[in-house]
Amino acid sequence: MAESENKSISELVKPIKEDPLSGAAELALQAIVIFQAVVADRQDEEPEKLRDLLRQTARELVSAQPAMAPIFHLANSVLLNIADAKTAADIIAICQKTLDDYEKQLCDSAAKIADQVYELIEPGGLVFAYSFSSTVVSALLNARSRGKYFRVVCTEARPNMEGRKLASRLASGGIEVIHTFDMAMGLALPNCCAAFMGCDCIARPGVVNKVGSWMVAVSCRELKVPLYALSGTEKFVGDDRLFEFEKHERPGQEVWGEAPKGVRMLNNQFDLVPFDLLTGLVTECGILTEADIEPYMTKYKVHEDLKLEPVLTVTD
Amino acid sequence: MAESENKSISELVKPIKEDPLSGAAELALQAIVIFQAVVADRQDEEPEKLRDLLRQTARELVSAQPAMAPIFHLANSVLLNIADAKTAADIIAICQKTLDDYEKQLCDSAAKIADQVYELIEPGGLVFAYSFSSTVVSALLNARSRGKYFRVVCTEARPNMEGRKLASRLASGGIEVIHTFDMAMGLALPNCCAAFMGCDCIARPGVVNKVGSWMVAVSCRELKVPLYALSGTEKFVGDDRLFEFEKHERPGQEVWGEAPKGVRMLNNQFDLVPFDLLTGLVTECGILTEADIEPYMTKYKVHEDLKLEPVLTVTD
Repeated sequence: MAESENKSISELVKPIKEDPLSGAAELALQAIVIFQAVVADRQDEEPEKLRDLLRQTARELVSAQPAMAPIFHLANSVLLNIADAKTAADIIAICQKTLDDYEKQLCDSAAKIADQVYELIEPGGLVFAYSFSSTVVSALLNARSRGKYFRVVCTEARPNMEGRKLASRLASGGIEVIHTFDMAMGLALPNCCAAFMGCDCIARPGVVNKVGSWMVAVSCRELKVPLYALSGTEKFVGDDRLFEFEKHERPGQEVWGEAPKGVRMLNNQFDLVPFDLLTGLVTECGILTEADIEPYMTKYKVHEDLKLEPVLTVTD
Repeated sequence: MAESENKSISELVKPIKEDPLSGAAELALQAIVIFQAVVADRQDEEPEKLRDLLRQTARELVSAQPAMAPIFHLANSVLLNIADAKTAADIIAICQKTLDDYEKQLCDSAAKIADQVYELIEPGGLVFAYSFSSTVVSALLNARSRGKYFRVVCTEARPNMEGRKLASRLASGGIEVIHTFDMAMGLALPNCCAAFMGCDCIARPGVVNKVGSWMVAVSCRELKVPLYALSGTEKFVGDDRLFEFEKHERPGQEVWGEAPKGVRMLNNQFDLVPFDLLTGLVTECGILTEADIEPYMTKYKVHEDLKLEPVLTVTD
């Protein structure tokens, strides 16, 4: 593969790598567009060259957001499905069908989740939402558009303030929003009938989401506020992949640009909420608790290029 | 009292009212300087006029920071002590002695607290500190200067970032500091041997401190990290005065300058940590728990001008 093509894939993936504001489902939709751009007008490409480009794209996408399961599953499906295709036209057709199916699955899941969230919101109530999740936004806007009146409290989600993106989206959809800084949520939560968050990936130990989700969960339990993570089942991963999120540290300057000498910055992006701190996981298959998740933990095949421990191959 | 003198007292008090970065003990020291400025060169004043000026100063100081008990007790002591003084010179002398005694008490308390904190820090350990407290700073710097090596994790304390002031002071005193945003404390706390915070006032229900202290406390309990509030006993107030802090809301623009239409801002400054979430209250009289506090809750006399519900007087 030419150096320039490697570089152009990196350029395409860069906005996903550098986006601290969007949720996993939203970035998976952007990853679909990137795969489409990579195969566009490549009917006359050598099949092996095209497959290499897609493998390169898949690897870069997964390493750009290692905590985001929907991106991993999308990339993995593309690579597994095109593995045996013989011509460039076949590769493109199979890739496109995989992308279309995945996009439809994401949208169907969001709609089914929204219908269940509608039932969880008390009429006239106050609900809490943390960080930014397109699944949470669509669920709350759906409830409002179906005529349920409620208010939402949300907080900044430092350091990148994606809580402001949430507040803006909800307000522009006609929901009355109350906004405060993160540590003040303890003053607002006692008045909330429910709390919602998105998530990036799920495995047996719990759900991974924006840093601070663990504190949200501990506070909700203390105050007896039901806490739901909203997520399609495409976010389940093997337990081995769950802790990939720990690799994801962002620049310390995002937290404090001019920290004095002797002050070391930490800027981790995700943390883990154990299942016992969640009231339920609202999926397209219903509201799940820890006892329900085993069937979703079935072993899926992982393409060689996306395995966590690359297998050493002995060549002659 | 002349309009201009009322105004000049307001001007003197303004920096205390508008300071979101300093702790209660630190602002009480500044209040001492303000009282000194008010009585300076007033030997030839009418005694009643001088008393009026001090009453005005006391009222303005208390309403500038209604949660900060040391300011209330300082102002209350000055007014009670000068009540029967006959001449301006007497008023000034009594006022000055009250201020000197109070300053000495604050400094003695801080030193005795620091000596106890020294014993609570594990050699080589990591300790957590929240928000800004001069008592916490002096205790940690004292331990370092006595040769104990340890590191401190602290967080921003949005929206006014007084955690950065804490980080800077500790780092410049030779302590290695790790700094992150507030909601990331859940990732750092599991490695901490103890957590420390200051406080603004104390009564039977618990201690009042910077918003978020409640979440710090709930997280510490979940992770079994001992949490200590450091405070001289001058921070005890009657239960009636404890909730004065709820009056204290700061401008919403501090949280989000350009919030869109439909988004209402909340910017509360304090919250309450119930005693059962605290491991102990480190005072100049030892480490207290809920069972020990009753003797410190003795009824103190409150000057008429500083009573919460002004008594209606019937005049002929």
